[in-house]
Amino acid sequence: MLHRPLIQHCKSCGNKVVYRLPDDGDTKERAVCTACSTIHYENPLNVVGTVPIWGDKVLLCKRNIEPRLGKWTLPAGFMELGETVAQGAARETTEEAGAQFEMDELFTLINVTRVGQVHFFYRAKLTSDQFDPGHETQEARLFAEHEIPWEEIAFRTVKETLLHYFADAKTGKFQFHHLDIA
Amino acid sequence: MLHRPLIQHCKSCGNKVVYRLPDDGDTKERAVCTACSTIHYENPLNVVGTVPIWGDKVLLCKRNIEPRLGKWTLPAGFMELGETVAQGAARETTEEAGAQFEMDELFTLINVTRVGQVHFFYRAKLTSDQFDPGHETQEARLFAEHEIPWEEIAFRTVKETLLHYFADAKTGKFQFHHLDIA
Repeated sequence: MLHRPLIQHCKSCGNKVVYRLPDDGDTKERAVCTACSTIHYENPLNVVGTVPIWGDKVLLCKRNIEPRLGKWTLPAGFMELGETVAQGAARETTEEAGAQFEMDELFTLINVTRVGQVHFFYRAKLTSDQFDPGHETQEARLFAEHEIPWEEIAFRTVKETLLHYFADAKTGKFQFHHLDIA
Repeated sequence: MLHRPLIQHCKSCGNKVVYRLPDDGDTKERAVCTACSTIHYENPLNVVGTVPIWGDKVLLCKRNIEPRLGKWTLPAGFMELGETVAQGAARETTEEAGAQFEMDELFTLINVTRVGQVHFFYRAKLTSDQFDPGHETQEARLFAEHEIPWEEIAFRTVKETLLHYFADAKTGKFQFHHLDIA
């Protein structure tokens, strides 16, 4: 169900682990070291990004890396230690698009339980329509709603976020959307 | 700065890792296996919980485990693989308080960058004032605002969430609060 490699060895001492119920009353099987008894927990990861806006257009990036090489995405990536959710979203927008922008509010929080991820997208106001994408991006381009390559969007959380963005834009009132994707 | 043990060994093959820049263009040092070259990423963890409400009172749990044994907290814990943020918050409320409740909206999202965590609290409507706390909890009890043991609250994110809850309750309008704790 979850596409992550199982833990084979203890990250503390390097010996083999087994998946079993720990001795501390925990009700879930964990990777427990057969030598030093360290318990290794695996938890969901946060993916953080933005909806960068220029007038009635949104900035998309054409991916230059797998997965989904050549497909279009909002700038986003894994949240890192040492940063807030919003700081991570801003960092990814700089790295992937080389955009200049001001961060706005949290717009979507989307659970992707099947892969153990939570995706967060903030609205961001572009302050320039010039971009300088990094090595992960083939091209960064602005799209009005009718220009969005809906069949070429890299990830479902990006598609859901764009759909909610253009729907809210019509009302002039942006709300926070909390969604689950099976 | 971050209170996590460094990775010493590869969780795939068990050999030693070194912290260095990977060869894939990454700009952060990662634990890279000296034998099989697997890159081990470390990312923030989500802590998920609720503000369980009964009339003008909030449910707090007296901790029966370290850290902060004997201090009072809202029911919360680490989000697990296979669940949404809200499902994790509900699970912790069941495990720690044995409460019966209906989940309401996301109330606070608090970055705790220093320890690499993001805390999420949902409002929850208690449907009973009888509780059956698990082994992690000495006592589960309802508190009106003037009864809250402010000096005995286990975690700052819990205190901030309670402060915002009682402030919003006075206005009758609950908003989503997005905070950073240094």
